[in-house]
Amino acid sequence: MIDLRSDTLTQPTKRMREAIFQATVGDDVYGEDPTINRLEELAAEMLGKESAVFVTSGTQGNQLAVLAYCSPGDEVIVESESHIFFYEGGAISALAGVQPRAVQGIKGEMNPAAVKSALRSEDIHFPDTSLICLENTHNRSGGSVVSTENMSAIYDIAQNAGIPVHIDGARLFNAAVASNKKVTDFTQYCDSVQICLSKGLGSPVGSLLAGKKEVIQKARKWRKRLGGGMRQAGFLAASGIISLTEMVDRLREDHEKALRLAEAIEEIKGLTLVNRPDTNIVLINIENTNQTNDEFLENLKREGVLAVSFGEGQIRLTTHYDVSFQDIEQAISALKKVI
Amino acid sequence: MIDLRSDTLTQPTKRMREAIFQATVGDDVYGEDPTINRLEELAAEMLGKESAVFVTSGTQGNQLAVLAYCSPGDEVIVESESHIFFYEGGAISALAGVQPRAVQGIKGEMNPAAVKSALRSEDIHFPDTSLICLENTHNRSGGSVVSTENMSAIYDIAQNAGIPVHIDGARLFNAAVASNKKVTDFTQYCDSVQICLSKGLGSPVGSLLAGKKEVIQKARKWRKRLGGGMRQAGFLAASGIISLTEMVDRLREDHEKALRLAEAIEEIKGLTLVNRPDTNIVLINIENTNQTNDEFLENLKREGVLAVSFGEGQIRLTTHYDVSFQDIEQAISALKKVI
Amino acid sequence: MIDLRSDTLTQPTKRMREAIFQATVGDDVYGEDPTINRLEELAAEMLGKESAVFVTSGTQGNQLAVLAYCSPGDEVIVESESHIFFYEGGAISALAGVQPRAVQGIKGEMNPAAVKSALRSEDIHFPDTSLICLENTHNRSGGSVVSTENMSAIYDIAQNAGIPVHIDGARLFNAAVASNKKVTDFTQYCDSVQICLSKGLGSPVGSLLAGKKEVIQKARKWRKRLGGGMRQAGFLAASGIISLTEMVDRLREDHEKALRLAEAIEEIKGLTLVNRPDTNIVLINIENTNQTNDEFLENLKREGVLAVSFGEGQIRLTTHYDVSFQDIEQAISALKKVI
Amino acid sequence: MIDLRSDTLTQPTKRMREAIFQATVGDDVYGEDPTINRLEELAAEMLGKESAVFVTSGTQGNQLAVLAYCSPGDEVIVESESHIFFYEGGAISALAGVQPRAVQGIKGEMNPAAVKSALRSEDIHFPDTSLICLENTHNRSGGSVVSTENMSAIYDIAQNAGIPVHIDGARLFNAAVASNKKVTDFTQYCDSVQICLSKGLGSPVGSLLAGKKEVIQKARKWRKRLGGGMRQAGFLAASGIISLTEMVDRLREDHEKALRLAEAIEEIKGLTLVNRPDTNIVLINIENTNQTNDEFLENLKREGVLAVSFGEGQIRLTTHYDVSFQDIEQAISALKKVI
Repeated sequence: MIDLRSDTLTQPTKRMREAIFQATVGDDVYGEDPTINRLEELAAEMLGKESAVFVTSGTQGNQLAVLAYCSPGDEVIVESESHIFFYEGGAISALAGVQPRAVQGIKGEMNPAAVKSALRSEDIHFPDTSLICLENTHNRSGGSVVSTENMSAIYDIAQNAGIPVHIDGARLFNAAVASNKKVTDFTQYCDSVQICLSKGLGSPVGSLLAGKKEVIQKARKWRKRLGGGMRQAGFLAASGIISLTEMVDRLREDHEKALRLAEAIEEIKGLTLVNRPDTNIVLINIENTNQTNDEFLENLKREGVLAVSFGEGQIRLTTHYDVSFQDIEQAISALKKVI
Repeated sequence: MIDLRSDTLTQPTKRMREAIFQATVGDDVYGEDPTINRLEELAAEMLGKESAVFVTSGTQGNQLAVLAYCSPGDEVIVESESHIFFYEGGAISALAGVQPRAVQGIKGEMNPAAVKSALRSEDIHFPDTSLICLENTHNRSGGSVVSTENMSAIYDIAQNAGIPVHIDGARLFNAAVASNKKVTDFTQYCDSVQICLSKGLGSPVGSLLAGKKEVIQKARKWRKRLGGGMRQAGFLAASGIISLTEMVDRLREDHEKALRLAEAIEEIKGLTLVNRPDTNIVLINIENTNQTNDEFLENLKREGVLAVSFGEGQIRLTTHYDVSFQDIEQAISALKKVI
Repeated sequence: MIDLRSDTLTQPTKRMREAIFQATVGDDVYGEDPTINRLEELAAEMLGKESAVFVTSGTQGNQLAVLAYCSPGDEVIVESESHIFFYEGGAISALAGVQPRAVQGIKGEMNPAAVKSALRSEDIHFPDTSLICLENTHNRSGGSVVSTENMSAIYDIAQNAGIPVHIDGARLFNAAVASNKKVTDFTQYCDSVQICLSKGLGSPVGSLLAGKKEVIQKARKWRKRLGGGMRQAGFLAASGIISLTEMVDRLREDHEKALRLAEAIEEIKGLTLVNRPDTNIVLINIENTNQTNDEFLENLKREGVLAVSFGEGQIRLTTHYDVSFQDIEQAISALKKVI
Repeated sequence: MIDLRSDTLTQPTKRMREAIFQATVGDDVYGEDPTINRLEELAAEMLGKESAVFVTSGTQGNQLAVLAYCSPGDEVIVESESHIFFYEGGAISALAGVQPRAVQGIKGEMNPAAVKSALRSEDIHFPDTSLICLENTHNRSGGSVVSTENMSAIYDIAQNAGIPVHIDGARLFNAAVASNKKVTDFTQYCDSVQICLSKGLGSPVGSLLAGKKEVIQKARKWRKRLGGGMRQAGFLAASGIISLTEMVDRLREDHEKALRLAEAIEEIKGLTLVNRPDTNIVLINIENTNQTNDEFLENLKREGVLAVSFGEGQIRLTTHYDVSFQDIEQAISALKKVI
């Protein structure tokens, strides 16, 4: 099976398994897990932030940012198809009592003027705007890179209004690699950022939230309330260190695989490329095939390829470490057969 | 001063003051206020619902509906400029832990297809859609009437999905009067409805939430938690009974005043009517006057007329019981002078 | 019927009805109700605080204090039978996300040492203590006065810990009158206080929360979210002004009636006085009558007297404005007959 | 260093490391991690429940139970020194909006009559009681075993009232081993139970919540909102399987070590044993040493032994896998020297 459903499905590499096996661990609730400590310092440094905290998922990292920055009755500006609004079970409202104000973006980029006009003024009828969330790369629009120009413009507005900016950077390293930029070229335009060690970076579990010391300290207390405080979590951190030190540049290959796949799809009659992939996600429109999503996916599976439904008439294919260039060629053949 | 800022500013009528003076009251926490009980029965009957509960404001009525129908982690579909989303301090998220999913309407009417596609399917990443909120008339688009056709279409979708519909009917009687329909022609397409006794109906304080018995019972318990359970509230109810029995048809005059005002404004160079008023709210765009909202309002005040800012470059004028046809003519003169 | 169920059942006096009838009102959401403004200033001054806000109930006043002072994940110290913990539907947790830490008092007075040891130190496992709530008089222990000595000792501890103190003073004027003290002798030991205009002070509806300006401003915004922001609420305030200016000293009579009732009960075989009343509430233990609470209350009702159940084997009788000394004598006869 | 601070500090065994190294993993968000699936089935079976879900900590398991069973405005009965009330950052109120009703126990056992009288009747002023939480063994009273008799009596009351019972069984296997009973002898008296794989069972990370299928399904959705949904979590599960299959009987040794320690302490002048240990936790009172907790712990550390403060004048010593019988003898010598 060639599994293009998600980059979260990667198996840890041999190097990761060994690192996990040999990990030095301690009780992280006491702050005594040396591997966790090392990972947190490494991440903070790479992301250009004062401090970082290890969390079990991107969702947890995002939620902690909201909990650390906001109070009930506040409003948070989110992109209208962002993960934090679309895929996190309404948690920002359920946990933090915060109302999302969704601004529709184009390929994940919100118009800075639209963000500005969504900020609330002081009025007894209004919630207080207390956070702006960006997502980079933007999953729902097919792994699009949100440009540093867009981020910079929004960050300026936020700074003027005294409102912090959080990046859901579950795949921020993909954005950096695809733009030939450093990840700090992006994170300079935010107050906090969450990155995932799984997905393209291949680790089994884990994300980090980075930002100012006092924000991360608040986040740690909320992590405890959410039950995200773990004991000998160094096993997971050991792999995470490899992700950050050895797996980042490799993302380029995933992007090349996605591009090859996209270019081939453009040639397949009946399939329409939703957009040229910036990174490792390929969205295709299958409405002209006269197959439902379920039928199409079932047929594709019979040809040895797994993908996922992504809204009506749309299919998502994601490249990653465990899919080779040869697998991509086979996937292309399978797609052709299915039509 | 001719006060066109809001219909909430009306002074109670002489009849209302007398009713208040003579009100028979009791302790409503014990269910023993006969005037409250009468008002609640009257409202339930007029709105075609099993039961009703008196509340101190439209906001409280709306919030109780959300609290009665929803659980934290749920999602509620709201129009993107609706009062419940725009003007209630983010309370549905702060109090009920519910995430609003805003659907952009046209003059307050959401496209039924857009509502349908906003419903969430069962998925571990998704909140559960547990309520659809409509607002009629729709304040932010200038008191527009949401048609029974639009309501019916959305109610069909909701029924099929097993999801209740709540109407924020703070000015629902205006919609009924303006459409020459009964209020039940509208409320047949909802499970719960909130109406205000203040505003055009002239009472000093109070709203009602009506719906199924068990929903209203849940709402009563939440009203207690919000501190909305009052003792001898019959004083307020006495006026409310007059609002419902004697003030409804009178709304027609407010609409005529608004229409006269709107037609005159169309003739004033520099002012643009945002839309022809369905009811008692007139929105004008003043961008061509080269005055800021604040300047314009200040100038208007100097001419003896009060109005409010309503978004960038927009001014809202609202007609009501305390503004006569003659006042409207004076207001028109004032507007001309200000340009 | 002699209604001793609660002092909340009083009918407004003739003076109150007249004041209501003649009230000058305005839209309080715009801050334009002169009677509300006057009441709020009067209350702030009488309570020795910077500012006050009118609310619809004691529950709302208490909840606003918690919402203004606390954040989710905080802990609030409450007496284990206090109204805010026992009778407000779990609202401090439901609305403010705050955990109550109940300390058992004796006749409403918590041991200062117990309060001190309930304060949380800084630890990632602990909530932060962010408020201490007192109740004076203390309803569940029979309207007991919490002494200024006890309040002062607790306030010292709170001040040293940097934690605000809130008084649920629904019947604080009873405490002042019973102690021959000024109400500010009590309120000097708190940061915020809620008092009720209904109950012994006879108004139909309303309470006030008083405290520092910025706290009251926060409370106003939360009042709006709870739907407690009213329009022409001056009708209620007009009566409230009479409560504060003309009804306070009169509470002495209620206390005398309660004392007379208590002394008579001590003489009735089969009935046990739970404690000598400090103010207007008399608790009796009826376990020796071999009647259940329901039977006893039913029998009493047949004799023309209403009372309420107050825990297993306990009955509460409350004196107030609408019960005369003669009524008390009749109630005593009724109690004798019921045995 | 002999580390008696907590049994959470254990290093994973060699067998665990190997199991982790060789673990077959998959994406658990897709339900495709075979090791997680195996662990969840094994735990459900051992605990006599329909279903189980893997979580990152005991806190998370407890919180999910509360979130699955309760709604905001509910009340949960907890023991007044229980972990869920004392050590989880006020999370049941912060996350679930639920008010804890604390009942004081003796050595962790709540009096069934006290539990019964804490149940709320139906009344508009009252929260609804929706869950009873027990803790077994009970940490704050020194790892005491809550007897099956006590559990059975409380469970009867709960069943009659239609209220579910949850056990915080972070150390439930210690209770079973110490009582020479099966763990199901305890879990028969609950609807849901949370157990930890770390602590005495030695795994680096992880707990399980077990109960009825529909409850566990709700818990899974809430786990996702808390960010506890992990990807290739099988690495942690692999160790957990060893904990459940190979480490349970071994707990007996920890209890023997604790007993030896306790008996020796009884002989040391100046130290007072708080209670004879049922399991692996030893509480000592050091007030007669004239040392503060901090001084005592510092002096002990200088002698090569680590322990923790446990309330004023109390010290907790916890035995576990990484502490040998010989270490215990050394610890005894150290304690003697410190006096």
